Amino acid sequence: MAAREREFVIGFDADDTLWHNESIFEATHEGFRALLAQYHDAATVDRTLLATEMRNLELYGYGVKGFTLSTIETAIELTAGKISADEIMQIIGRGQEMLAHPVELLEGVAETLSDLAQRHRLIVITKGDLRDQERKLAKSGLIEHFDHIEIISEKDEAAYAKILRRQSIEPGRFVMVGNSLKSDILPVLGLGGVGVHIPYHVTWAAEHVEHVPLAAGRFYRLGTVRELGEVVRALR
Amino acid sequence: MAAREREFVIGFDADDTLWHNESIFEATHEGFRALLAQYHDAATVDRTLLATEMRNLELYGYGVKGFTLSTIETAIELTAGKISADEIMQIIGRGQEMLAHPVELLEGVAETLSDLAQRHRLIVITKGDLRDQERKLAKSGLIEHFDHIEIISEKDEAAYAKILRRQSIEPGRFVMVGNSLKSDILPVLGLGGVGVHIPYHVTWAAEHVEHVPLAAGRFYRLGTVRELGEVVRALR
Repeated sequence: MAAREREFVIGFDADDTLWHNESIFEATHEGFRALLAQYHDAATVDRTLLATEMRNLELYGYGVKGFTLSTIETAIELTAGKISADEIMQIIGRGQEMLAHPVELLEGVAETLSDLAQRHRLIVITKGDLRDQERKLAKSGLIEHFDHIEIISEKDEAAYAKILRRQSIEPGRFVMVGNSLKSDILPVLGLGGVGVHIPYHVTWAAEHVEHVPLAAGRFYRLGTVRELGEVVRALR
Repeated sequence: MAAREREFVIGFDADDTLWHNESIFEATHEGFRALLAQYHDAATVDRTLLATEMRNLELYGYGVKGFTLSTIETAIELTAGKISADEIMQIIGRGQEMLAHPVELLEGVAETLSDLAQRHRLIVITKGDLRDQERKLAKSGLIEHFDHIEIISEKDEAAYAKILRRQSIEPGRFVMVGNSLKSDILPVLGLGGVGVHIPYHVTWAAEHVEHVPLAAGRFYRLGTVRELGEVVRALR
């Protein structure tokens, strides 16, 4: 353990980094577009739903329940109240399906974590709904690899700084791995840590960041988590 | 600080212990009964809503968003789909009002915490929605008194044991103060700690416990938080 403590601590985002998530939301979006197709084109549906989500984000925070409430609100708005109770029940039912959805790990995650856990302290830092994230972690089969789990309401520099301080992790010896530049990479680079960006094939519009950070030796972009071991080994 | 560490650490529940919460839910229940009055009597509305909440609890967890979704589901069920989109928007709007509701401290809380914080480490252990609990803590004006805050998804013995271990709190030197026997008192007595029960005038049906614990010198029931200082001073 003494030897391990001099090593880098590796933090992992969860949704779309360890397991599929946005693809499940995307399937729900598809269904929602179909539900409203007789009223509006897909672009209008997407745009209005995103606007509703953004308006409600401060109140609802992240997660499936807030998303479901925003979807119902959008459906009522876009149909001028003509949406039926049965269709609203479909939206609620779809939200429940999302919460009960099996956890599907991304390719290479199980092996990579099992390998890295032998040499590094691994932690999870994720945002979203408390119970939903706990359930997914429990279902993931990965929990034995993690020394610590943090489920927080917003991933900004202050939140990361607080976690690193409490966990006695020196920011310069911390590597954060995630699919969101905004939530996983930029705040950690700001603290002097290392960011490893592994893009997921779908990104929620609210997580979009235009520019790619310039931080030689501190920022890496990988195509798959399988390359992570090599990057971490080369860190100084 | 060395002197303080030999003292008892005091944990506080939040909703209905530090500030009013169930009374806000109760006002929402009133409105919901009125909304469905032309279909069903109040007892049927209450019973069906509670059954829906219990059925969804494992998926939704605690908090206003899950409650709002369960309320919509109940409204659709109890009106056989005749509830209007406008009425569903009223339910969503009421949920948003609950989330944005001002924090109203219980009588005596501000002074008692300010006093106890001078001699004891105070922590918050609350369950519910992450963002909603954080928002209420931020609004409460109490945050400076707390050394540590834990927002968890379920308050059982295992959850308390984990928090006490991580916070290096000896269970025998821990006092938990709260309005729920089930969530605040029984698990802590089970660990050998002290439980101080301060009933709130409304208890959510899901938190009801029939029997009062027998634990001489470890269990206290108070009428107001103002009596807490005296109880803590007498603890050995």
